[in-house]
Amino acid sequence: MVQTIPVSPLALPLPELGVVRGVRLAAGAAGIRYAGRTDLVLIEFASGTTVAGVFTRNKCPGAPVDWCRSVLQGGIARALVVNAGNANVFTGRAGYEACRRTAEGAANLIGCHLEEVFLASTGVIGEVLPVQRITDTLPSLSNALKETNWADAARGIMTTDTFPKAAMRTAHIGREKVVIQGIAKGSGMIAPDMATMLSFIATDATLPASVLQVLLSDGVKTTFNCITVDSDTSTSDMVLLFSTGVATHPPIAENVDALTDPDLADFRKTLNAVLHDLALMVVRDGEGITKLIHITVTGAISDDSARRVGMAIGNSPLVKTAIAGEDANWGRIAMAVGKSGEPADRDKLSISIGGICIADNGSVRDGYDETHVVAHMRGQEVDIAVDLGQGNGSAKIWSCDLTHGYIDINGSYRS
Amino acid sequence: MVQTIPVSPLALPLPELGVVRGVRLAAGAAGIRYAGRTDLVLIEFASGTTVAGVFTRNKCPGAPVDWCRSVLQGGIARALVVNAGNANVFTGRAGYEACRRTAEGAANLIGCHLEEVFLASTGVIGEVLPVQRITDTLPSLSNALKETNWADAARGIMTTDTFPKAAMRTAHIGREKVVIQGIAKGSGMIAPDMATMLSFIATDATLPASVLQVLLSDGVKTTFNCITVDSDTSTSDMVLLFSTGVATHPPIAENVDALTDPDLADFRKTLNAVLHDLALMVVRDGEGITKLIHITVTGAISDDSARRVGMAIGNSPLVKTAIAGEDANWGRIAMAVGKSGEPADRDKLSISIGGICIADNGSVRDGYDETHVVAHMRGQEVDIAVDLGQGNGSAKIWSCDLTHGYIDINGSYRS
Repeated sequence: MVQTIPVSPLALPLPELGVVRGVRLAAGAAGIRYAGRTDLVLIEFASGTTVAGVFTRNKCPGAPVDWCRSVLQGGIARALVVNAGNANVFTGRAGYEACRRTAEGAANLIGCHLEEVFLASTGVIGEVLPVQRITDTLPSLSNALKETNWADAARGIMTTDTFPKAAMRTAHIGREKVVIQGIAKGSGMIAPDMATMLSFIATDATLPASVLQVLLSDGVKTTFNCITVDSDTSTSDMVLLFSTGVATHPPIAENVDALTDPDLADFRKTLNAVLHDLALMVVRDGEGITKLIHITVTGAISDDSARRVGMAIGNSPLVKTAIAGEDANWGRIAMAVGKSGEPADRDKLSISIGGICIADNGSVRDGYDETHVVAHMRGQEVDIAVDLGQGNGSAKIWSCDLTHGYIDINGSYRS
Repeated sequence: MVQTIPVSPLALPLPELGVVRGVRLAAGAAGIRYAGRTDLVLIEFASGTTVAGVFTRNKCPGAPVDWCRSVLQGGIARALVVNAGNANVFTGRAGYEACRRTAEGAANLIGCHLEEVFLASTGVIGEVLPVQRITDTLPSLSNALKETNWADAARGIMTTDTFPKAAMRTAHIGREKVVIQGIAKGSGMIAPDMATMLSFIATDATLPASVLQVLLSDGVKTTFNCITVDSDTSTSDMVLLFSTGVATHPPIAENVDALTDPDLADFRKTLNAVLHDLALMVVRDGEGITKLIHITVTGAISDDSARRVGMAIGNSPLVKTAIAGEDANWGRIAMAVGKSGEPADRDKLSISIGGICIADNGSVRDGYDETHVVAHMRGQEVDIAVDLGQGNGSAKIWSCDLTHGYIDINGSYRS
C-alpha cells in the first residue's frame, strides 16, 4: 500500500535530544495501517501536568480533535495516545467510541481519569479506526515507557513524513534551567488556518494551564500558522504543550500577563524557537519538496495583511512551479500579491529574490540582469521579499516548491 | 522558447461559426513572442456598437485592463486589439504608452476616437510590450478584415492554449433573430475572483450599454466566475460583450430591468449559455488536464457560500491529485469542505461521486462499495456532489485535475 518515497533533500538529522523530567514515552507497532513499522505512541506525564492546545480550524475536524478540545477544559494531562495511518475523521459515532475506548485503555494503565487522556490520529480519512489493535497494544507500551524514548516517539507518529522531526532547547525561569522539547509530524495537507499537523511539546517547567495557553496560542501565530505546503487544511491538526511541573522555579501566577512578564521572557523566546524549529521541519518535509521558500512581506497595512499576502505567494501553484523550475518568473509573484485581495498598489510594490531587487515603482529595474537571481534559485533555499509600500505590517511565511514528487505522492497513494 | 504541449484530451472541436453583422476580424503574425504563428487580432465594430466589460479583481492589473476600464465609461466600441505572448503587466509608464500607441494605430486605421478602442494582452508579465511590432502589423490586418474570420481570431489570441475556443448561438428579441458569438482563451492562471482570462463576445442585437453590462455581470457570476484551474488569478482577465446594433428588433430602453424583462428573456438565457460554453472550454484546456470535474454544492446557507465551498473543493491540490489518480478518496472532499470556513457540519454533510452517495450523517454509508465510484472516476468527467444540510444555497463549479502535465508546463516554461 505504501510506496517508497525518497527522503526529502531538505531533511535535517534528528538533533541530540534530552529528557523532560516527568515525561515517559513508548512507541510500538499496532498494525493500524502500515506493516513493519511503529505506528502507536503512548506518552505518560507526571501527576500535576498542565496542558495547552491549538487545533485545526477546519469545520470538519476529526473525533480526536473534538475529544481534545473537550478534555482541554480541565487543563490537566496524564497521558497522550497518538496513532498514525488512520485519522479517525468522518467516522461518526464509531469515531467517538474509538476515542473513548482508547482513552479508557490508557487511563486504566496510567491510573488517571478519562479526561486526563489526550488523543491524536492522522492518516486516511473516513475509515473506522481499528481500536482493538490500539487497546491490545497499549499494555506493552505502558511497560516500555522510558524518559529517553523521544526519538522513537518522533518516528512512531510519522505518516508520509520522510524524516522524524524533533527539537530541544533550554530556557531559564528565574535561576532554574528548564527544558522544552517537542516532536512533530506532517508533510502534506499543510496549511495555515490553524495549527498544523501534529506537534507535541513538553517542558518540565511549572506553569499554570492558562499561562501555557497564552504562550502557545501566541507562538503558533508566527510559526505553525505561517507555513504552507499545499494550502490544504487538515481535519486533524493540533499542537499540544505540556508542562510537568517538576522544576522548582519561583511560582508563576495564573493571571500573569504571559506575553510581557519578565520572568517568562526567556521561556517564551525559547518556546517560540522550538515551535519555529518544528514548523520549519514540517515544510522541509513538504511532499515532493526540492526547495524551501522563505517569504518576507513588509510594508503591509498590518501584520495580518502581510501574512495573507505571504500566504497568497506561498500557495500559488504558479509561483511554486516556477521555483521548482528555477525560473526567475517574478511576474507570478506580482500576480500572487494582487490575487490576495489585500491593499496593494502595483506602482509602490517592490519584489526581490535572493536579496536582489528586481522590480519596483511599477516596473522592472533598469539594467536588471537575472544572472544572480537564477544562481540563487539553483540553491535549496529561495528567499522572496516583497514590500507593499502601504504601512508597517510584516510577516514571514515558509513554503516549498510544487514538483512532480507532489503529484506522485498524492495522485496514487491514499495516505 | 515554446515547448510542444499535447492537445488537451478534453478539447472540443471548433463549432460551426457564423457571422455577427457589424463585426469584422483579422489575425496576423506580429512576432511579439511566438515565431510562426498568429499573435495579433484586430476586430472592427460597426458605428454605434455598445459595449460592456467585466475585469480581473487582481490588485495588480495589467495596463490594458486599466485602459479598458477607463474607456468603458463611454460605452461605445469601434475596435478591439488583442495580442498574445506579452501581457503588458507590471510595465509601468511604458505599459500605458504601449496602450496609447496601439490604440492610436487602430483608431487611425478604423477612423474612430481613441476611447472607442479596446485592448487586451496576455502572456509573460513584466516585459515591455514591443509596441512597434504591433503598430507595424495593424495596417495589414486592417486590410484583411472580414466578417468570416472568427476562427482565425480564436487561434490568434491563444497562449498556452492547446485548442481554439469559440461558441455561437442564436436568440430572439421580439421576432428578430440575433446572433451571439464569442471566442475565449486561457488554460492556466485561471481562478474565479473575476472574469477569467480573455473572452470577447459579440451580438448584432441593439442594446444599450447599461443593459449589456447588467446582463454580462450577472452571466459571468455563474459561468466564468465558477471555473478554476489553479486558483491563480490573472492580472489580465477580461470578458467584453459588444452589441453592434444592426438588428432591428423593438427598442430596449436603457433603464429596463434587464434580468426580468420578458423581451430580453431569450437573449439573456442564450447569452448565459454562450458564456457557459466558453468558460467550460477554458477548463477543458486547463494546463495538464486529464479530467474535467463538475462540482455541485447544495444545502449551503447561501449561493455565495455554496460557491466558496465548491471553489475550496475545486482548488484543493489534494482533491485534484486524487482525481488525477482515479482514487475515490472522498475524505479529501470532506477536508476541503471544512477548510472553506463556510458554515458546515460534519454530521449533516453528504458526499457523492458519480451520483453514488458515499457518506452522510457523519460517516461512510453502510455497505459502501467503491467499485462503481472508481469506474466513474476512470472516465474523463467526474461529478462531485456535496450537500451541506444547512439551507437552500447552491452553486456549480468546474475544475480540472492536477497532473504531471501542469508541472511540466509551468515548472520550466516562462509563459
